[in-house]
Amino acid sequence: MSTILAPLACGIFALAVAGFFSFYVLRQEPGTAKMIEIANAIKEGATAFMKREYTVISVFVLVISVILAFLPNLGWQASLAFVFGAISSAVAGYIGMSIAVRSNNRTGTAVQKSINKGLKIAFRGGAVMGLSVVGIGILGVSILYLVFNGHVNFLSIIPAYGMGASSVALFARVGGGIYTKSADIGSDLVGKVEAGIPEDDPRNAGVIADLVGDNVGDCAGAGADLFESYVSSIIATMTLSLVAATTIAISGNALLPNQQVAWYLPLLVAAGGIVASIIGIFMVRVGDKAEMGALLNALRRGTFSSSILTAIFSFLAVYFLKVDLGVFWAVLAGIITGVVVGEATNYFTAYSYRPTFKVAEATQTGPVNTLVRGFANGLMSTLPSVILVAIAVTIANHFAGMYGVAIAAVGMLSTLGITDATEAYGPVADNAGGIAEMSGLPHEVREKTDILDSLGNTTKATGKGFAVGSAALTALALILAYTTAAQINFTDISLLNAKVISGLFIGAMLPLIFVALTLNAVSDTAFSIVNEVRRQFKEIKGLMEGTARPEYGRCVDICTKASIKALLLPGVISILTPVIVGMLLGPVALGGFLAGATITGFTMGITLANAGGSWDNAKKYVEAGNFGGKGSDAHKAGVIGDGLGDPFKDTSGPSLNIMIKLMSIVSLVLAPILSNFKGIF
Amino acid sequence: MSTILAPLACGIFALAVAGFFSFYVLRQEPGTAKMIEIANAIKEGATAFMKREYTVISVFVLVISVILAFLPNLGWQASLAFVFGAISSAVAGYIGMSIAVRSNNRTGTAVQKSINKGLKIAFRGGAVMGLSVVGIGILGVSILYLVFNGHVNFLSIIPAYGMGASSVALFARVGGGIYTKSADIGSDLVGKVEAGIPEDDPRNAGVIADLVGDNVGDCAGAGADLFESYVSSIIATMTLSLVAATTIAISGNALLPNQQVAWYLPLLVAAGGIVASIIGIFMVRVGDKAEMGALLNALRRGTFSSSILTAIFSFLAVYFLKVDLGVFWAVLAGIITGVVVGEATNYFTAYSYRPTFKVAEATQTGPVNTLVRGFANGLMSTLPSVILVAIAVTIANHFAGMYGVAIAAVGMLSTLGITDATEAYGPVADNAGGIAEMSGLPHEVREKTDILDSLGNTTKATGKGFAVGSAALTALALILAYTTAAQINFTDISLLNAKVISGLFIGAMLPLIFVALTLNAVSDTAFSIVNEVRRQFKEIKGLMEGTARPEYGRCVDICTKASIKALLLPGVISILTPVIVGMLLGPVALGGFLAGATITGFTMGITLANAGGSWDNAKKYVEAGNFGGKGSDAHKAGVIGDGLGDPFKDTSGPSLNIMIKLMSIVSLVLAPILSNFKGIF
Repeated sequence: MSTILAPLACGIFALAVAGFFSFYVLRQEPGTAKMIEIANAIKEGATAFMKREYTVISVFVLVISVILAFLPNLGWQASLAFVFGAISSAVAGYIGMSIAVRSNNRTGTAVQKSINKGLKIAFRGGAVMGLSVVGIGILGVSILYLVFNGHVNFLSIIPAYGMGASSVALFARVGGGIYTKSADIGSDLVGKVEAGIPEDDPRNAGVIADLVGDNVGDCAGAGADLFESYVSSIIATMTLSLVAATTIAISGNALLPNQQVAWYLPLLVAAGGIVASIIGIFMVRVGDKAEMGALLNALRRGTFSSSILTAIFSFLAVYFLKVDLGVFWAVLAGIITGVVVGEATNYFTAYSYRPTFKVAEATQTGPVNTLVRGFANGLMSTLPSVILVAIAVTIANHFAGMYGVAIAAVGMLSTLGITDATEAYGPVADNAGGIAEMSGLPHEVREKTDILDSLGNTTKATGKGFAVGSAALTALALILAYTTAAQINFTDISLLNAKVISGLFIGAMLPLIFVALTLNAVSDTAFSIVNEVRRQFKEIKGLMEGTARPEYGRCVDICTKASIKALLLPGVISILTPVIVGMLLGPVALGGFLAGATITGFTMGITLANAGGSWDNAKKYVEAGNFGGKGSDAHKAGVIGDGLGDPFKDTSGPSLNIMIKLMSIVSLVLAPILSNFKGIF
Repeated sequence: MSTILAPLACGIFALAVAGFFSFYVLRQEPGTAKMIEIANAIKEGATAFMKREYTVISVFVLVISVILAFLPNLGWQASLAFVFGAISSAVAGYIGMSIAVRSNNRTGTAVQKSINKGLKIAFRGGAVMGLSVVGIGILGVSILYLVFNGHVNFLSIIPAYGMGASSVALFARVGGGIYTKSADIGSDLVGKVEAGIPEDDPRNAGVIADLVGDNVGDCAGAGADLFESYVSSIIATMTLSLVAATTIAISGNALLPNQQVAWYLPLLVAAGGIVASIIGIFMVRVGDKAEMGALLNALRRGTFSSSILTAIFSFLAVYFLKVDLGVFWAVLAGIITGVVVGEATNYFTAYSYRPTFKVAEATQTGPVNTLVRGFANGLMSTLPSVILVAIAVTIANHFAGMYGVAIAAVGMLSTLGITDATEAYGPVADNAGGIAEMSGLPHEVREKTDILDSLGNTTKATGKGFAVGSAALTALALILAYTTAAQINFTDISLLNAKVISGLFIGAMLPLIFVALTLNAVSDTAFSIVNEVRRQFKEIKGLMEGTARPEYGRCVDICTKASIKALLLPGVISILTPVIVGMLLGPVALGGFLAGATITGFTMGITLANAGGSWDNAKKYVEAGNFGGKGSDAHKAGVIGDGLGDPFKDTSGPSLNIMIKLMSIVSLVLAPILSNFKGIF
């Protein structure tokens, strides 16, 4: 009991600080009547979408929970944990988004006085998301541990929590991703390209849907994604240590010397990370005449300090619990990998570095060259991430066996409180700019929000790199936990086993199918928006002249319906395929399947995210007045690259993170059932 | 000795038929003076390129052969085999291409009399390539067996032959692929888009380079690729059976009951395939008023008959050699997979089917939608190929263990004599059309060659599906042979081994880096061509009016130099990386590395090939007069999709096939050295 006190206390602390930040944000001035009106439209659109999305998810969660309740080795306790996990994830996403949609207009107002004030509101608005995610996550796992510890099905109950979180995350990411990119591409194609009006112009009927999309995709979707990584890495490590403590040690790998604390350590590392993150968040501040460099340094100071503090706390935990020091090295490998992977992503996607500058240069020779260069850049960017993860795995395994690999994932994710804050900050700044534009504020306000926004683009890039790197490590930890829980022998799951080979091939294919489905969904929905915006320009008299208002609600509605409809198939495939593979080919083939899916999901995820980021910033570089600037042929080529990159980086790429984790955790939950099953073929 | 007689005889028979076809082609009328002039320009360009390419490859082969000669367990015999393999591949590619560049103008002339006559010449021209490949391949392996059988290093000598062939194949595919696509994209971008002149217009300075590219890429490059798959599948099966006969049986998998014939069977299956292919080739004929459907049926009749005959011959071989019948089922699984994978590719890339029709439809809504749809289609097309290969592996393994998996690859490739003929036919028909256009023949001639050309596009699609499917099976067979030769224990190469995991990740990344490098190379070279064609239009007076001739040679020269320069890095990486991984992380990690590279190389290869094929045919559908036809906005969108697809499908995609096999065979050759080596880390 006493051992669980520290994580519980830290979880409550995180939520308390999140509450404090919420009140701080709400106390700020909301701006002019026009700004409030627009902010309200965004809020209403986002709330309407979340409501419908959560309704669909509820039905799905209900169905799965009934099935789980009747499965042997699982029962109502696992079913309850599953529902609890789903609700936790949904609540974390909802809280974060609610504050984000209230921070945008306040940021836009504050920035008129000082950029530091604007940064503070936007960042604290984002921090509510980060802290809700880690607070609810650690509380959820700790409470489950407290209630069900010692239960005969405990090893299925804890993972079921993660499975619930994963399911919500997948739907939120896919649904939000389809929504945000359909609205973005759709309104851009008609607005910028056909009608020749600027981005975020109030005459564009799709513009509110676009701003809603930023919140439901980049904010709520990303939050659910990271919530899931966070709890899953802890759960994987706990399961791994608990199974190993009760059954035979995993062959071929050394485990912890002191088994009693093995399950407890991941919670403690995470708890330390929460304290470190909160300290880091308070360190993010700049002077009043801040420039881009200073802003970036302020954020970096926060995240780097959190990482260093987490490392120190972890060392103390390892030292005082008298755990083998090797475990600390594993945690440290995870923390460092998280930081470096994020920076590597930034290197490949920021136009101040060579790779994306080359893409920007290519816009001068037309769209084909832009496309070829950007895609090549995305592929090339897998190099540092993959090598870093491979090194982290090697080091963690060397010092602490497979337990080390799992706890390295926990180490990487322990600073999530602040890294998610920096990511959730992005859509707030983006929205602030949109609101400033739409409510006709002076041009210099938009310039200031643009600085905040471009900072948001950098943090988004590092955040995505971090998300994909942590997803790979977490998936790996889950696969290890799965093989342990399914009692798969080290020697059985050999690459020379034909079933493993078949599993690898099928698994490797699945992320590609998933990407194809989500890309097609964006394409379908975006072109419904194109048609709707075109229709409104044609049918509403005075719209182009600014004397009439477009029907924003129609576009919001189209996006909502279409994305809800489109998220089901990819979601169901991700949950059912591991079950089918496990039943047909057996648990060993399922292990190969998960490994195959993880490696292509990981490499494909990086490629799509960074190719997209690179095209986006190449276009921004041209828009900043280079190579002919806006409206030039180079710009048109840049817009085409960005158009392909949008669903790459904001729908398909990030969804892959969740997909590989979801498939692994479904397998982990079903492991006790599959363990004595050899497959039909 | 007597056992090797049948393969030797069949090899000589194949070359005799190839000789007969060569004389047949050369006896035909070469056409008007203008046609001969253009054909000569293509021939000279192609020969000049091959000469320079082979010079570079010779230096490379020499360096590697010296290194091999001094390595322990290898020696001058392995070095000799390596050089022999390289020369065999080069000779096969050269013979095939020499006849192809002499068939194009003759096809263009004959088609004026009858389309059947044109088909016959073009197809026999292509068959010279197919039969040279299988004839030289089976002769090479048989001769090596005859000379070195019983030698202490025999298990390294035979694979070294494959490594030689692989090295040449990689350079030929990458070099030829960069050449052909740079010329194609470069001349199209200026010609079609900027100057508004049709494809193959003689005023375009890049047009000869484009026609040369078809020959050095699609013909010589593809031939070298398939030569390598062909010999490697045989070598992998032989090595696997010979190692297993001399060392302990591979744990966990049943092997052949009768070890003595295990090494001999792959040669016999291949020999049967040669006879079947020759019969099939003679069955390809149509009536005089042939339409597209009849032409396609004629080709299908040939390939299907060859497949059925090969199955019958294999059954007889298995029956009379008293081998377990399970081996026959494995061979059959391979043969069927080859046919079905090819057809599946056609389904995804022909505009008469839904997937590519949807891409064509998307051109109406602009380039972004075209790009998203086409890429999604490429990804989706991995589904049938991966499932089919997984089923083939499962069936082959079920009936004949790992030996079954290897010999399934031999079964699949045994009909290569005819499948390669149908693929090499494509560039001949394409060139015939280009020559007809450039030499000002009447419009109806071009219409006839267009029918032959569009048939070529279908055979190219099925051929590519076949190539990538066979490459996956061959790579798998090579990996199995490698693990056996490196004496890796079944139980060591576990997915739970951290070294295997690291290897998997790094291996999975490498094909993506390879694609990035080749894409960038095409982009660089294509834009040198763009600049050169633009310069000529500007500086040569009367060029646009048709009173002056462009300097074709300059473009040929630029492509040659640039592609030779660009092929080195990807080639060297493919050869060195397995060596580095093996040295640093040890042979077990190298096994994981090869598996990782194979699964992403395979899935990525299919995606790139079919996305490219789909964009190409979507554009062709628009050019046929749909959705506004040539010059419309839909057409422009189609051209952009095709522009990205061109290097996807003709440079990067097919090169991946060779890359994964080359890395596996390098590992196989080095296996005896690595076997007692645990890696530095």
